[in-house]
Order: sequence, then structure tokens, then C-alpha cells
Amino acid sequence: MRTIGTGCTGFVADRMSGVPRSFIREILKTTLDPEIISFAGGLPNPSFFPVSEIKDATMKVLDEDGENALQYSTTEGYYPLRKFISDRYVEKKGIYISPDDIIITNGSQQAIALACKTFLNPRENVIVEEPGYLGAIQAISFYQPHFQGIRLRDNGIDTDMLERELAAIGGAKMYYFVPNFQNPSGITYTEAVRARVAEIFRNYDTLLVEDDPYAELSFSGTILPPMASYPGINVLSVGSFSKIISPALRLGWVAASRELIDKLTVSKQASDLHSNYLSQRIAHRFLTDNDVESHIKRIREHYKAQKNAMVEAMKKYFPEEVRFTNPDGGMFLWVSLPNNISAYDLFNDAIKEKVAFVPGSAFYTDESKGGYNEMRLNFTNSSEERIEEGIKRLGKIIKKKITEKFSGVVSDEEVAV
Amino acid sequence: MRTIGTGCTGFVADRMSGVPRSFIREILKTTLDPEIISFAGGLPNPSFFPVSEIKDATMKVLDEDGENALQYSTTEGYYPLRKFISDRYVEKKGIYISPDDIIITNGSQQAIALACKTFLNPRENVIVEEPGYLGAIQAISFYQPHFQGIRLRDNGIDTDMLERELAAIGGAKMYYFVPNFQNPSGITYTEAVRARVAEIFRNYDTLLVEDDPYAELSFSGTILPPMASYPGINVLSVGSFSKIISPALRLGWVAASRELIDKLTVSKQASDLHSNYLSQRIAHRFLTDNDVESHIKRIREHYKAQKNAMVEAMKKYFPEEVRFTNPDGGMFLWVSLPNNISAYDLFNDAIKEKVAFVPGSAFYTDESKGGYNEMRLNFTNSSEERIEEGIKRLGKIIKKKITEKFSGVVSDEEVAV
Repeated sequence: MRTIGTGCTGFVADRMSGVPRSFIREILKTTLDPEIISFAGGLPNPSFFPVSEIKDATMKVLDEDGENALQYSTTEGYYPLRKFISDRYVEKKGIYISPDDIIITNGSQQAIALACKTFLNPRENVIVEEPGYLGAIQAISFYQPHFQGIRLRDNGIDTDMLERELAAIGGAKMYYFVPNFQNPSGITYTEAVRARVAEIFRNYDTLLVEDDPYAELSFSGTILPPMASYPGINVLSVGSFSKIISPALRLGWVAASRELIDKLTVSKQASDLHSNYLSQRIAHRFLTDNDVESHIKRIREHYKAQKNAMVEAMKKYFPEEVRFTNPDGGMFLWVSLPNNISAYDLFNDAIKEKVAFVPGSAFYTDESKGGYNEMRLNFTNSSEERIEEGIKRLGKIIKKKITEKFSGVVSDEEVAV
Repeated sequence: MRTIGTGCTGFVADRMSGVPRSFIREILKTTLDPEIISFAGGLPNPSFFPVSEIKDATMKVLDEDGENALQYSTTEGYYPLRKFISDRYVEKKGIYISPDDIIITNGSQQAIALACKTFLNPRENVIVEEPGYLGAIQAISFYQPHFQGIRLRDNGIDTDMLERELAAIGGAKMYYFVPNFQNPSGITYTEAVRARVAEIFRNYDTLLVEDDPYAELSFSGTILPPMASYPGINVLSVGSFSKIISPALRLGWVAASRELIDKLTVSKQASDLHSNYLSQRIAHRFLTDNDVESHIKRIREHYKAQKNAMVEAMKKYFPEEVRFTNPDGGMFLWVSLPNNISAYDLFNDAIKEKVAFVPGSAFYTDESKGGYNEMRLNFTNSSEERIEEGIKRLGKIIKKKITEKFSGVVSDEEVAV
């Protein structure tokens, strides 16, 4: 009996060379300690997982149609679930997408990865938000793109910079963005910004990948018109059940025009034949047998209270120089420290005080682009009490750091901005 | 309200151009008619799905650990399930693979696709069996390989041809193969062939992708030593729970040396974060709470009877000129018609008589390579009665075709060999 194979990293394909390691992954390992107050992960609050409803749904699916529910299925996914998604687009976002133009994916991450696999050639321009969703940056990196980051402002993407950079680089193949309660910043594009973005892209053959996992987590219940509702642009809509049912089921989707969906179907088939069919059946049963509106409303109300607790604590415990977003939904907010305070240094000190977060540079395609003094905080996975305690501890460390800088004390880990 | 986006197939990446459409997919659509006796699909027999045991396992998982079982999880997969796989490698195949060197994937299809994504550069040589597994050919095609097909013989791959072609093309980056009860042929590599394959590849830096979904469906219970047990070669072992539990759960795995697994983990993370965690928990619970050996033995015995029924019927109803394999396990057998009989023509006639199968050319990287007069028959998804009836109908059509050829009658659809 022997150990399998021999190690040979020379095997690795060229496309692997530009792929960043996930810093979040490394951080999450350090936060397995239950004593740590973690604002690091992007985890939904598990107390809102509909455990008993999922149990009931599973029983019914297996009792009524067990043999079919355990068999191979179609690449596109369970039709009634796609119909549910189609109906919800009409109801919540005011656009009609045929169930035939929707593919069920393994979470929205697979939808993003499939879009890249299907449409991106090496060295094509891809526009991303700065800061942007780490998982998308990683998925896109595999296809050896030329990344062009565009700054976020309080009202969404910086449309002047978008227009200028698009002209400078001669257009882009893809624009990946999260218009509602963005990960990591919590920022939402205003309607004016959306209209301007559509206007700009009408001049280019760009595929707009609109990733919208958080729309249903709008604290006010308001959902602005999706980019897919603006005429004259090519939008691929990505969604997820992870935040409103359960991430473990790995159920997301991608919706687009028939021609694009046909191509994506081939990619999906070659990637894993089809998504977990039992989970599709369970999710559909859960969605049709229960009052989903009340379920989501309950999540939204709690998340809103958690976000408020975090914002109030930051006002109370953070020095005035620290700026932060105040999102109307989603799971994250974004903190900007004074320019000369390193979020990495802060992380190292915070971990000793048993508080974790993700330093900002993880959300840039290149550390030199930004993030040095920024950080992402998740507010959905800690109780209001732990949020207050964690922010209090962070505030104390930040104040100490500012005082050190002011008094000229230089820590070992300090690096140039 | 308007339809999403506009169609623009010019978007498609270059890598899509070499990807074959899945003919099986098209065929499966024609066989949804329950009156059709289908030997076309690769479906396990649903009567052996452990519906009530899966129900029990789900209840226990959700009752005892519901919130965790519905949360995000690790990219590598649920550790106790990887430990189960590790233990089973020792017990069934006599090799030790650490649970740390195993990643749970969305079926073995994803394991194959991830291997390509991680290791293949465009235009690298990839060795495949002729005929070979269609899903792998499709997955590999995305990475713009140079395919080199190697003929199968009754005892496995043609090792003389393998040695000769490897030398001629200057080695290969990857060798994809199914050593046990191969899809589509049902052929198993003998121990002598395995030893020779190992000897040949010791001279090359080739990654051997050993796809083995059918080993546990060995009718005799015998499992020959895996290629991963031979020293001096680089093997990536791919496995699946689809054939012994349920395909709907989409649970497979890939096992390799730590260096390769580290790289595959990054690819997996970027592709979909992690595999369905609830299903991993359910599968693990099912495997530990039940007598899995008896469950698999029951499947094997039935499949053996179904295979025997098909072989007996072919002996009875097929003309002598028709040759076919007689597998000791798995789900498929392979039929070779006389050289001048087109399997496509036969398919068109057979569908009118409500019998379906897959014409052989779907299993070649190029139609010109072979398959004209060949076909794959699945024996697991039809009862013995329907197998006899279906083969009887096929035999009648084949006899008619042979007589037509002999008497000079030429059908409209006839094409040159």
C-alpha cells in the first residue's frame, strides 16, 4: 500500500498563475474559535434557516416522487423551480424572463464561473468594481483577463471614470457588478447611476453580468429596477437562494437571452451535468408550501436591527476620522480608516482581542489598487450584543493606532501606503 | 416589461468552438415517451434508490444538526465523508489515500472538468480511449486539446498503439481512462494491461485521470488493482456515489497528491465555492447507518441478471455477424454491426419501432475516427422483459438491413463509411 501519485506542480496550467489565494479562506480558519467575534465571514444567520420546513419539504418530495427525485435530471434544472424564479422576476423586479431562459446553477458562484468559461477569451478587458466581490475576481482570474477596476462612490459605480476608462481601453468584453447592497461595500446603485450605466454600455458590445444575491434583503423592501430592465444592453442576470433559504443547498441561477443560455447550457453540462436535483425539488417544495414573504421579512427585520446595532456602536466607539457605509440591505458594510492606518496591522491586533474582519485589499484585483486602510464587516452572523462588544474592542485598537501614529511610534509591521 | 438582453452569439469564447453537442442529450429527449424501450441513457435503475433510507438520514441530519447542515461549508467537503472514501479505498482497492487528499465534487463530471481547468493548457496532447466516455470528451474539449485516441481491445487499451502514439506525438499532458467496465464499451483492463500502461507512462510526465465510477458494480465482486496503486506514475483518482446511492445528489470526488489537490481546491473554490453540503451530510449518514454492502450487492445482482438477459437475447435475435461485449460489471455493452451498416440508419428505424440506443460515433472525438457501425446499449434501466422485447425488435431491423445491403437496396439516408 502506498501514497497516491507523486507531487508535480509543473503540471499546472498557465491560467492558474494569475489566480489569487482567497485570504478570506485563510481568515475563516482562524475564526473557527467560538470565542472570536467574527465580522469576517459572509455567512447568513443560521437561526433563520427554515430547518423544520426543509424537513417537511424533503419528506413530501421523497414520499411522493422519491425515485424521480433521486435520478439524473436535465442540465437546465427543474422546470417548476425555474418557473418560480421567472414569476418572482415579474413580481419583484418588473421584468419578464422565460423559465426557458434560466439555468439552475450550484450557487451564484457557478453562474459567474460559467459566464467566464463560456464568454471570456484570454486578455479580454473585464470591468470590475473597486472594491469588488472577491469570489468573482477569483472566478474571472482563471480566464486570464485584463482587469479594469472602477471606483465605487456612495451612489454606485463612478460613471465618469467608467466612461473614460472604457474609451481608453477600447471597450470591454464583460462588466461584473453587484448593484444592490454590494459585497463588500454595502453600496447600492441609484436609479440615476443605473440609467447612466445603461447609456454608457449602449455604445459597447459588453456582456453585463448583474449579480444580485441581496435584493431580497432590502431592509425597506424596495428593490430598484435591475439593469436587465434597461433596453439596448446585454445583461446576464445572476441570482441565488443562499441568502433566503440556505447556502448548503448550493442553488443559484443565471438568466439571459436564449442564444446566451444555449451556450451556457453546454458549459454547464460539461462542468457537472446538472445541479443537485434533490435540492432543487426540496427548494421548490419549500417555496410553494410556505409563506416565503413572511420568512424573508423576518430575516430582513433582524438583519436591519443587526446593521443598526453595528452602525450605532461604530458611532459610539470609533474615532471621528473613521468613515463607514450605512447600507439599506444585504450583509456587509465597509469601513475606511485614516490613510496611514493599515487594516492588516489592525487585523493582527484585533485577532489577539478575539475580533475578526476582512482587510480591504482582498477585494481589489491588485493590492496596489487599494484596500490598505479599508475593511469589510459582516453584520448578519453575530448577535447585537456581540456586535456591540466587537466594535468596542475594535474602536479601542483603532484609537491606540491613531495615537501611536500621531506620537511617532512605529510598529514593526508598518509598511508604506 | 421586456424580454431580457439581446442575442449576441459573437460573445462566445474561442474555446467553445471545438466543443461537441451532446448527441445523447438530443436522443434522451426523444426517449421521454414511456412507450419507448430505451437502451440509450446511462441511468441507474431507480428501483434500487434507497428512498426511505435517504429520508431517515435526512431527518437525523436536520434534527441533530440542522443549522450547521444548511450553512456554507468548506471547499474540500465534509471531512467524515472524505474519511469514509479514504477507508473504502483501503478496503476495496488496497491503497491508502488520506482524507486530506480528497475533494468532494458535484459528481465525477466536475472532477474531470476541474482536472482540465487546473492542468490543461491549449493544444496540449490528451490521450483518450476510442471509444471513450462522451462527458469527458466534452469536458476536455473546452480546453482546446490535441486529442489522441487509442483503440480499446477486449483486454483494455491497445498498449502497443499507446506506446507508439505517445512516442510519435512526444508525450501527453493527460491520459483520461475508465479501467473498469468502461463507458461505453463495458471493457475492463486486465492486470497485465494495467502493468504495461504503468510501465509506459513511467517514461512521461503525464497526469493519468483514472475515472472509476463502476468498480463497485463488479458482478463478481472482484476489483482489480487501480492504476493509482502502481508506482512511478501520476494518478488522479476520480469516483462517484451516483451509481451506488443516487445521481441526483451529485456527489463524486477527486483524490491525488497533496500538491495537485491544493491546486484543484483553488479551482473548485472559484467554480462553485463548495459542493452541496446538505447532500454530503445525508450521504454520509446513509453510508454509516445502513448495511451498504448488502445494498450494493443487491444492485450488482440485478444488473448482472439484466446484462445476462441482454446478452442472451442478442445471441437469440441478432444475426451472427453482429459482435458485442459481455461485461463483468457496469451499465453498458457495446455492439459492432457489420461494417456497411450505419448505426444512425438503424437508430432512425429503431425509433419508429420504439427502441432507442446511442449510435457509436458519439463516443469518438471525431466522427471520422469510428463508430459508424457501432452502438452503446444500456442494460440497467429496463426490465428483463423489456430488454428481451427491445433486442428482438432491434434484431429484426438489423436482419432487414443486412438483407437490403446484400440485395443492393440502398436507403435514402445511406452515407459512405
